Amino acid sequence: MDKQLIVSDMNGLDALDRIRIVLSRTSHPGNIGAAARAMKTMGLTRLYLIDPASFPDPVADARASGAGDILGRAQVVGSLAEALAGTVLSGAVTARRRERSVPVRSAREAGAELVQFAGQGDVALVFGTETSGLTNEEVALCSMPVSIPANPAFSSLNLGAAVQLLCYELRMAAQAPVAPAAAAPEPATFEEIEGFHRHLEHAMRASGFYDPANPKRLLQRVRRLFGRVRLEKEEVNILRGIIGALERKPD
Amino acid sequence: MDKQLIVSDMNGLDALDRIRIVLSRTSHPGNIGAAARAMKTMGLTRLYLIDPASFPDPVADARASGAGDILGRAQVVGSLAEALAGTVLSGAVTARRRERSVPVRSAREAGAELVQFAGQGDVALVFGTETSGLTNEEVALCSMPVSIPANPAFSSLNLGAAVQLLCYELRMAAQAPVAPAAAAPEPATFEEIEGFHRHLEHAMRASGFYDPANPKRLLQRVRRLFGRVRLEKEEVNILRGIIGALERKPD
Repeated sequence: MDKQLIVSDMNGLDALDRIRIVLSRTSHPGNIGAAARAMKTMGLTRLYLIDPASFPDPVADARASGAGDILGRAQVVGSLAEALAGTVLSGAVTARRRERSVPVRSAREAGAELVQFAGQGDVALVFGTETSGLTNEEVALCSMPVSIPANPAFSSLNLGAAVQLLCYELRMAAQAPVAPAAAAPEPATFEEIEGFHRHLEHAMRASGFYDPANPKRLLQRVRRLFGRVRLEKEEVNILRGIIGALERKPD
Repeated sequence: MDKQLIVSDMNGLDALDRIRIVLSRTSHPGNIGAAARAMKTMGLTRLYLIDPASFPDPVADARASGAGDILGRAQVVGSLAEALAGTVLSGAVTARRRERSVPVRSAREAGAELVQFAGQGDVALVFGTETSGLTNEEVALCSMPVSIPANPAFSSLNLGAAVQLLCYELRMAAQAPVAPAAAAPEPATFEEIEGFHRHLEHAMRASGFYDPANPKRLLQRVRRLFGRVRLEKEEVNILRGIIGALERKPD
């Protein structure tokens, strides 16, 4: 297989298999479970735990709720350097402003960049503790700080929620930009739509609602309305059926 | 203040004040607390609870963790129609595929559309129960279904995580630079659109076109058609004028 093919393979959801989610010194096992569930909903599988306060733990299992397989395969390591071994890019998720650091990426920018680099090797996204986040040393070990746009007056996302958001952005980046062509319903033709407008105009006139001598832009308004909707063939039939029935209405 | 100024004011984070987060029949008070925290991190404040299993509840307070003010101002209502009263656009967050419904918006598309409409009135995003989501009737009352892109083999996001993701997309949309809006026509409200559907259904039935004993999904088709079009206030008046005139048609 030539390199071009390998690279293009990685532009899809396969990239998610190359992304490590790293949780540093997590205090509450429930948050580890919530992170596993969040990862699995977005198709990520590789969880690394640096020095967790308690793992394995039944509270983590309960919160994982269907994502126990992610917990079962989690790698427990003793340092961030171990968790990052072999990666080609890593992001440190942090709310605090750090001086003199590499420019901060937003969650969306980081998702795109990590997925792009996943074509060339493992990448990682690192989350700190619930109370104090990542240390300056940990941030410095990563390729870039990553920050989730948030309310500056209350930016404290729950750890599981932060993992959910970043995994979502990773999935969005991995699945961009191909739109699958669904089996679309058959659109109405120009002639069918014009036939509908003639029918409606006739019915409006016969009923006295539309007075051609005093039109007040009524027909334009009606055309504008139905022009926005991209009528389907069957919908034109339904609309004409309604008008026809109202025209013939029994007394 | 002229209309142009009002519209452009709403292109920023102020739009978030016009967005209602509606939770329908939530079973676990912890999830209500998590939703409040998720909302506040993204700058949203208006929580509506339809028939919650338990509220207020100390478990909700604990999980809100700093977002108790959102819980304190939450509106408890008895039906989705109450929660949507006065809104000009609403999204039903749903994982299931529904047949013949209005086209599904992704979380990102819905965020942009809701923020845009928030320039003209309140909008809402509706979340169902933890186990069964929203009913078909609830989805039908909303302007559009909204779905979070997820792993098809495991798409069950935690309720708090789903609220977090959507509120994030709303914030991202609200802070995106927006081309100055043209003086937009006034959208129809939820009540006006429901009034139109009742009027049309009555006319279709009286004319014999719609037989409630043999409905053939006609009402769903009609709702799907007009659900796509984002009716304006004046357009609802025109449509009801046409129906009314046809109903009274002279012989």
